[in-house]
Amino acid sequence: MARLLICYSTGTGTTEVFAKAVAEGAASVDGVNVSLKNANDIIPEDLATIDGVILGSPVHMGSMDWQMKKVIDGPFAMMWIQKGLVGKVGAVFTSGSGIGQVGAGAEGAMIAMLANLAELGMIIVPFPSSAPGYHTNGLHWGPSAITSESKDGRPLGVPDEQQIAARSHGANVARVTAELAGKRLLDP
Amino acid sequence: MARLLICYSTGTGTTEVFAKAVAEGAASVDGVNVSLKNANDIIPEDLATIDGVILGSPVHMGSMDWQMKKVIDGPFAMMWIQKGLVGKVGAVFTSGSGIGQVGAGAEGAMIAMLANLAELGMIIVPFPSSAPGYHTNGLHWGPSAITSESKDGRPLGVPDEQQIAARSHGANVARVTAELAGKRLLDP
Amino acid sequence: MARLLICYSTGTGTTEVFAKAVAEGAASVDGVNVSLKNANDIIPEDLATIDGVILGSPVHMGSMDWQMKKVIDGPFAMMWIQKGLVGKVGAVFTSGSGIGQVGAGAEGAMIAMLANLAELGMIIVPFPSSAPGYHTNGLHWGPSAITSESKDGRPLGVPDEQQIAARSHGANVARVTAELAGKRLLDP
Amino acid sequence: MARLLICYSTGTGTTEVFAKAVAEGAASVDGVNVSLKNANDIIPEDLATIDGVILGSPVHMGSMDWQMKKVIDGPFAMMWIQKGLVGKVGAVFTSGSGIGQVGAGAEGAMIAMLANLAELGMIIVPFPSSAPGYHTNGLHWGPSAITSESKDGRPLGVPDEQQIAARSHGANVARVTAELAGKRLLDP
Repeated sequence: MARLLICYSTGTGTTEVFAKAVAEGAASVDGVNVSLKNANDIIPEDLATIDGVILGSPVHMGSMDWQMKKVIDGPFAMMWIQKGLVGKVGAVFTSGSGIGQVGAGAEGAMIAMLANLAELGMIIVPFPSSAPGYHTNGLHWGPSAITSESKDGRPLGVPDEQQIAARSHGANVARVTAELAGKRLLDP
Repeated sequence: MARLLICYSTGTGTTEVFAKAVAEGAASVDGVNVSLKNANDIIPEDLATIDGVILGSPVHMGSMDWQMKKVIDGPFAMMWIQKGLVGKVGAVFTSGSGIGQVGAGAEGAMIAMLANLAELGMIIVPFPSSAPGYHTNGLHWGPSAITSESKDGRPLGVPDEQQIAARSHGANVARVTAELAGKRLLDP
Repeated sequence: MARLLICYSTGTGTTEVFAKAVAEGAASVDGVNVSLKNANDIIPEDLATIDGVILGSPVHMGSMDWQMKKVIDGPFAMMWIQKGLVGKVGAVFTSGSGIGQVGAGAEGAMIAMLANLAELGMIIVPFPSSAPGYHTNGLHWGPSAITSESKDGRPLGVPDEQQIAARSHGANVARVTAELAGKRLLDP
Repeated sequence: MARLLICYSTGTGTTEVFAKAVAEGAASVDGVNVSLKNANDIIPEDLATIDGVILGSPVHMGSMDWQMKKVIDGPFAMMWIQKGLVGKVGAVFTSGSGIGQVGAGAEGAMIAMLANLAELGMIIVPFPSSAPGYHTNGLHWGPSAITSESKDGRPLGVPDEQQIAARSHGANVARVTAELAGKRLLDP
């Protein structure tokens, strides 16, 4: 059974809802054990036996939020030293306001998270334009939730339509994780 | 009189329309002489006496188009050797399809063009979220036209509403260019 | 037999030498047919039946050179329309001057090429810090040749020591290509 | 008197040494009041009256460290809401190990910090290749210290030669800050 971890940070709860949809999509794939965990709760042991990881963060000031970066600088950096995730599978997603209608920094946030996965030597799964949900929530590096608020500033969650992209991304990454688990293809 | 060049590439003509709106905004500022030129027509002499430049390109496969890169690798790279644009003013804009609703690679295209401006030692003007038009066509690095097509695939141009962002960006860059023209603030 | 294409652009010939070392490394892996081709010579048919591609470019003004971008905007963009490379394998390398000792724009050039691979829906192989040659020519996104010149400006090629990184990257990508060839893991 | 803040984070102390050299360079410019502060100690009031800011961080896993991101997501994000730094001056620097000899992620770390400055609407000063010190510690986005260690893993600080780049960058940014202080050129 391949093990896939979805590690997310969340402010208002929107990214968590999107992360759950990613996890649902991943869990729909045979042969993959999926776990979902808030970045704040990750401990080094969580990373010791995984075959793949998906990182998801809100977009803050054009990059991932500091809570995600803190877990990267901690437990993930420890795995860099140990070379423990080389050749395993990685992917990303974000959640953002959509202000400006040009991505609002989602690309920068994704690239910063992908840099961590590349540093770890992980094989990266992008988000193909052929994927279900790409049309409404798609960037080539990964899907992104587009948040909205009620008039009094209350987050309105992630509409069902948006969760399609999250599910198809989760399933794609899970399939690659299942396929590559246990194989040592990089620097064997 | 400060001199500001708007250098654009264009496929279907959309980026050219947006570039003209950038030029209009720039020309509304006192003390600035604005020229607008297709990247294919740029010669080294065009860059010899400018005080600022705005680069604009369609987004193709997540970066600027090859025609813009060709003028960067040619006339602009010659200015890099001569250190001729150090301390002058630079900025960018793009035009893209909007597929996916998460920027469609506009950020990557802008950063690639900004890398050229930074290599040249140019002072970079971003696109503030307080700028008119940001709400519909704004990314922090610059504005982006969002193209649409008729049902038979004919480009529908850039609606008036979108041109607001282009004009306010042009005016911002022109003001900074007028202010800094003739001053040698970097590596004096 | 999996098919892996190494597509490079070159100015002084340095990137070509590095590309040949990438190809050598790839060819050392069983079950992979490796072809090496200058970007200028790529035709759409070259991309029709490949299982993986490695793109390599000199770093010019902080990004890939225009010749590489031209083949991306042409034959590769045609594959984007056809969704013909979704789920296949991609990777990158660069060649640069090393001026400044901080990468000289290799990272920006690699990310711009990787954006194309991600747009195509390709699974991306990074360059792990555990790879032979990483210590002298390694960036997490891929290896980079560091060029040097004789006192009269003649390019001095790529020393043997640098080619280690190219070979280990080629072999890594070839192994993943052989493993994934013919499997439709993304958007099946 | 224009006010310029240098805000740095530091792990082993190397980035702090480099930050002090940046501050020295800035303080050599007439008409500029320079303050130097650890990111952990920044309070919103520190940002209320500044005319420019330089952010400096170690490179961790291909981006800035989490402590720098935390101050960006806190006090800086508050200024984004207030539009309080629009049109002011910003710049960046990093400190990294140099492993691999291709920048080791400094470019990604700088772009992530620059994204914050662009979101704030700040005018960005790059690091021209004509600047003193560029040859040993220069990237177009900013200078970077290259750290080294003794054989027992003790950080060896930043050699004098490397501090040249830091000083020239500090002076460049200070000159632009002095020139633009009090002028409202963007979205007036």
